[in-house]
Amino acid sequence: MRERADPAAPEPVTSTTEVEVRYAETDQMGVVHHANYVVWFEIARTRLCAESGFHYGEIERLGYFLMVTGVEVSYRRAARYGDRVAVACRLERLGSRGLRFGYEATRDGELLVRGATDHVWVERESGRTCRLPERFAGPFRRLAGLSEG
Amino acid sequence: MRERADPAAPEPVTSTTEVEVRYAETDQMGVVHHANYVVWFEIARTRLCAESGFHYGEIERLGYFLMVTGVEVSYRRAARYGDRVAVACRLERLGSRGLRFGYEATRDGELLVRGATDHVWVERESGRTCRLPERFAGPFRRLAGLSEG
Amino acid sequence: MRERADPAAPEPVTSTTEVEVRYAETDQMGVVHHANYVVWFEIARTRLCAESGFHYGEIERLGYFLMVTGVEVSYRRAARYGDRVAVACRLERLGSRGLRFGYEATRDGELLVRGATDHVWVERESGRTCRLPERFAGPFRRLAGLSEG
Amino acid sequence: MRERADPAAPEPVTSTTEVEVRYAETDQMGVVHHANYVVWFEIARTRLCAESGFHYGEIERLGYFLMVTGVEVSYRRAARYGDRVAVACRLERLGSRGLRFGYEATRDGELLVRGATDHVWVERESGRTCRLPERFAGPFRRLAGLSEG
Repeated sequence: MRERADPAAPEPVTSTTEVEVRYAETDQMGVVHHANYVVWFEIARTRLCAESGFHYGEIERLGYFLMVTGVEVSYRRAARYGDRVAVACRLERLGSRGLRFGYEATRDGELLVRGATDHVWVERESGRTCRLPERFAGPFRRLAGLSEG
Repeated sequence: MRERADPAAPEPVTSTTEVEVRYAETDQMGVVHHANYVVWFEIARTRLCAESGFHYGEIERLGYFLMVTGVEVSYRRAARYGDRVAVACRLERLGSRGLRFGYEATRDGELLVRGATDHVWVERESGRTCRLPERFAGPFRRLAGLSEG
Repeated sequence: MRERADPAAPEPVTSTTEVEVRYAETDQMGVVHHANYVVWFEIARTRLCAESGFHYGEIERLGYFLMVTGVEVSYRRAARYGDRVAVACRLERLGSRGLRFGYEATRDGELLVRGATDHVWVERESGRTCRLPERFAGPFRRLAGLSEG
Repeated sequence: MRERADPAAPEPVTSTTEVEVRYAETDQMGVVHHANYVVWFEIARTRLCAESGFHYGEIERLGYFLMVTGVEVSYRRAARYGDRVAVACRLERLGSRGLRFGYEATRDGELLVRGATDHVWVERESGRTCRLPERFAGPFRRLAGLSEG
C-alpha cells in the first residue's frame, strides 16, 4: 500500500524523456509496434531513477536488480516514424519489497499510451527478492514524494 | 461480456508455439528482456489466428487490422538463452467490436509468464474501428469455443 | 563511382546524433548487442537526410524508398548501458542509382564501431529500382559535398 | 588463412534453421527490417555451434565469448510477415585466434540475403582475446571440414 504523502512533503517527481521514433520501431501497420512502448517506459524509468541520485546501472553495480514482475499498457493513439514522443514516468507506489512506476506517452500534449510496471528488489548475488535496501530508501522515498523518515 | 459456451460446442482452441530463446533477446541481467514476451505473445496469436483459417497476414490483405489496445503481462520466472519456451494462446473473449487473447509461457511445464492482450477491429482503409467483420465471425466464434450461430 | 569534389564545393555534410544506450539494447555479455548498431546507423542516417531538407519520412510520402542493399560493420569496442554514444553519418558516395553512407560510433572521442550501408532508390508504387529522382538530386549532392550542377 | 581441407576430411558442416517471420520484425516498408537478418544469422550460428557438441551457452559457461568483430550483409530480396525463411550457416574460416561464419537466407530456394560474421575468442574473466581454446579445437575443426589433427 502506498503511504499517504505528508502534506509538507514534496510531490512525487515526474521525469520526462523525449524519444524520437526510429524507423526500426515501426511495423507494417505503419505505426510504432506496440512492444516498443515497454522499452520506452524503461528509458523513462532509467531517467527517473537517475534523479534519485543512483543511475540504474549503479544500482546493479551495488548488487541489486529492480526485477520487472508486471507490465500494463493501454493504447489510445499510435506514434509514427519521426514523431517526438514525451514519455513521463513517476514512482506511483513504494512498498517495503516492491514498487510501481506509472507512465504516460504523449505527442504534442496528446495522450498516446498510458502504462505501469511493477518491480521487486532482487539481490544480484543470491537471486532472491529482498526488502528495499537501506541505502536506496531515502532517495526512492523522495522520488515517491514521501517524507524521508 | 463473453457468452457462455454451449455445452455441446467445442472448447476454446488453444494453440501452442515453441520459441527458442535468441541471444539477442537476453539483456545484461542474463535473462530474456521483459519486452520480448509481448513479441512472443504475438507469435502465438499469429499461430492461433491461422487456425481460424485466416492467417493474420490474410486478414490485413482483406482490409482489416486487429489493433492492440491493451497489454498485460505478469512475470513469474525468467527464460534464458537457449531455453525452449512453449507459448500457449487462446481467445478468451469475443465481443462485437473487440476481443481478448490470453497467454501462458511455460518451460518444461513450469509457468514463466502469463498475459493478455485486448484488440479492436479496424478498417484498414478508413482507420476506423468497426464491428467484427461478417466473414471472420464464424471462424473466430469457433476459436472462442462458441456455437457458430 | 564517386565524382571528385570540386575544390570550391562544400565538404560532405557530417551529421552526428547522440544515442543513450537502452537497457533493452544490452545482451547477456553485458554490452550492446551487435545488431543494434545497424539500428543506430539508421537513426544517424535519418538525421543526415533531414539536413538535405527532406526527412526520410517525407521521401517515402513522395513515393520513394532508399532500400538497403548492403550493410558492413566493424566492431572495435563495446558500448554499455547508460553510455552516450555519438553516431556520425555522412554520404560517402552518390551515384546515379544508388548511394553509400558511412558511419562512426564513438564514446568520448574513442572509436567504438565503424560501418557503411549501401542503398538503391526504389519507386514505392512499382517496387522497381530507379534513378536518383530529380527533386532529390540537388539536396543529396549538397550532402555529398558535390557541386549542385 | 583457411587451411585446405584434406580430401579425405568431411565437408564443412552446414546447419539450416527455419525462421518464421514475426510481425514485430516488419517495418513500415512492409518487409522485414534489415537489422533482423543479423539476429537471424545469430540463431543459425547458435544452431551450427550446437552441432559441434557445445551449445554456445555452454561455451560461455566454460569461460569464453565468441565476440563479433565484423558483420557484412548483402540484401537481394525482402522477406515478409509469415514467410518461412531458411537460414543456412557454415564455418567458413577457422584461424588460430578468430573465425568467420557465412550465411544464406532463402525462401523456397530463392536467395534473399547473404552475409558473414567475423569473431574472435575472448576469455570471459579477463576480457582479453585469446587463441582457440584447446577443448574447442577438435569440434570446431570438424565444423570447418578440417582434419582434426
